[in-house]
Amino acid sequence: MRRGKFIVLEGGEGVGKSTNLQFVTNWLQERSISFVQTREPGGTPLAEELRELLLRRREEVVDPVAELLMVFAARAQHLARVIVPALEQGQWVICDRFTDATYAYQGGGRQLDRALIEQLEQRVQGSLRPDKVLLLDLDPQTGLERAASTGAADRFESERLAFFQRVRAAYKERADAAPERYAVIDASRPLEQVQQQLHSELEKLLP
Amino acid sequence: MRRGKFIVLEGGEGVGKSTNLQFVTNWLQERSISFVQTREPGGTPLAEELRELLLRRREEVVDPVAELLMVFAARAQHLARVIVPALEQGQWVICDRFTDATYAYQGGGRQLDRALIEQLEQRVQGSLRPDKVLLLDLDPQTGLERAASTGAADRFESERLAFFQRVRAAYKERADAAPERYAVIDASRPLEQVQQQLHSELEKLLP
Ligand SMILES: Nc1ncnc2c1ncn2[C@@H]1O[C@H](COP(=O)(O)OP(=O)(O)O)[C@@H](O)[C@H]1O
Ligand SMILES: Nc1ncnc2c1ncn2[C@@H]1O[C@H](COP(=O)(O)OP(=O)(O)O)[C@@H](O)[C@H]1O
Ligand SMILES: [Mg+2]
Ligand SMILES: [Mg+2]
Repeated sequence: MRRGKFIVLEGGEGVGKSTNLQFVTNWLQERSISFVQTREPGGTPLAEELRELLLRRREEVVDPVAELLMVFAARAQHLARVIVPALEQGQWVICDRFTDATYAYQGGGRQLDRALIEQLEQRVQGSLRPDKVLLLDLDPQTGLERAASTGAADRFESERLAFFQRVRAAYKERADAAPERYAVIDASRPLEQVQQQLHSELEKLLP
Repeated sequence: MRRGKFIVLEGGEGVGKSTNLQFVTNWLQERSISFVQTREPGGTPLAEELRELLLRRREEVVDPVAELLMVFAARAQHLARVIVPALEQGQWVICDRFTDATYAYQGGGRQLDRALIEQLEQRVQGSLRPDKVLLLDLDPQTGLERAASTGAADRFESERLAFFQRVRAAYKERADAAPERYAVIDASRPLEQVQQQLHSELEKLLP
């Protein structure tokens, strides 16, 4: 059986990942492609519990390495229980955030050593990488304003603007280093134009 | 200021770690040594939440690497918030389990690659190692019978005997490899004799 494709939606706060996930799954449904829709951190009961620990605002200062290890713990569980089995069964996997978010938030935002992230990526994922990362790019100020309309700020959303500027720069650096695996989409444009570009990127993935 | 000493109680289920922790802290109090008493996984609010996720029995099969990363996430947080600050202030730290338990349970029990545990130990602890590990050694059958009297079995206590035999062997291997840092104590003997030996090991730590 042909292995399914692994598609990830990435970008900072309020860029439109969740909104456009729906667009991608509609596209898959129209083509009768069997898929699993999921998100990170999360995607299994244990990984969702880790997500809750990661996102909840707390008095206690969270050590950046502890945060990084929790992210990869959730990812190891998600891969073992959901992503790898689905891909092996020929299903596509469409995921709201994945390891690029770790490079962006823990690497860029928290300024953790990229080499440590690479080591963990290697141990947890082996050779598995997304087939296509749809990177929604937007200036953080606009993104945070959009995100503010969708509920109370979590532990990440409560960071300062400079944090999100580093997140954005780290995402772009990743896309520049491997342009064949990334589609960088200008998320400041009206939703309809964003989705036109998403559509043409998705069409390229068909055999 | 002189750095405090870092003492760890180790061993399988029901060997008497919690019982003897009290003995050690009494010994410290009698000598007016300022100390912090703590445990792993746990020791901070976030790390205790991770402990709960690790120990709770669940339907979902937990990926061994996810488990290992959760253990080290809790440890990174515990070190940053509790252990390192205490030692730097000259306090002793007395801890119920630490990284030897990871070598024993995730390395021995789950048969994970020791090299991965070493890498994480290096990244999370730097050069910090316990000054003395008090390893309570007991055949697992007896230990599990003792532990059964203290409450319902958690996710680890529900493992099979062969798992605990590997745990015990891994602990002993660690002690054999660095005898100056370990005191191996025969925990099958009456508590009074166990504590006589603990007492003489503790006295050796005084200047
Ligand atoms: N291209 C766009 N133009 C204007 N608003 C948008 C656009 N894309 C998404 N939004 C709005 O921005 C807000 C955040 O979108 P959301 O999909 O929740 O972002 P994310 O999941 O990336 O944080 C929502 O209110 C959404 O309707
Ligand atoms: N040397 C000993 N001989 C007999 N029983 C013991 C001894 N040490 C501890 N126990 C008992 O074994 C049980 C488990 O001890 P505990 O300290 O909770 O172990 P652990 O914390 O290592 O799991 C308790 O009921 C305790 O009273
Ligand atoms: Mg979203
Ligand atoms: Mg105990």
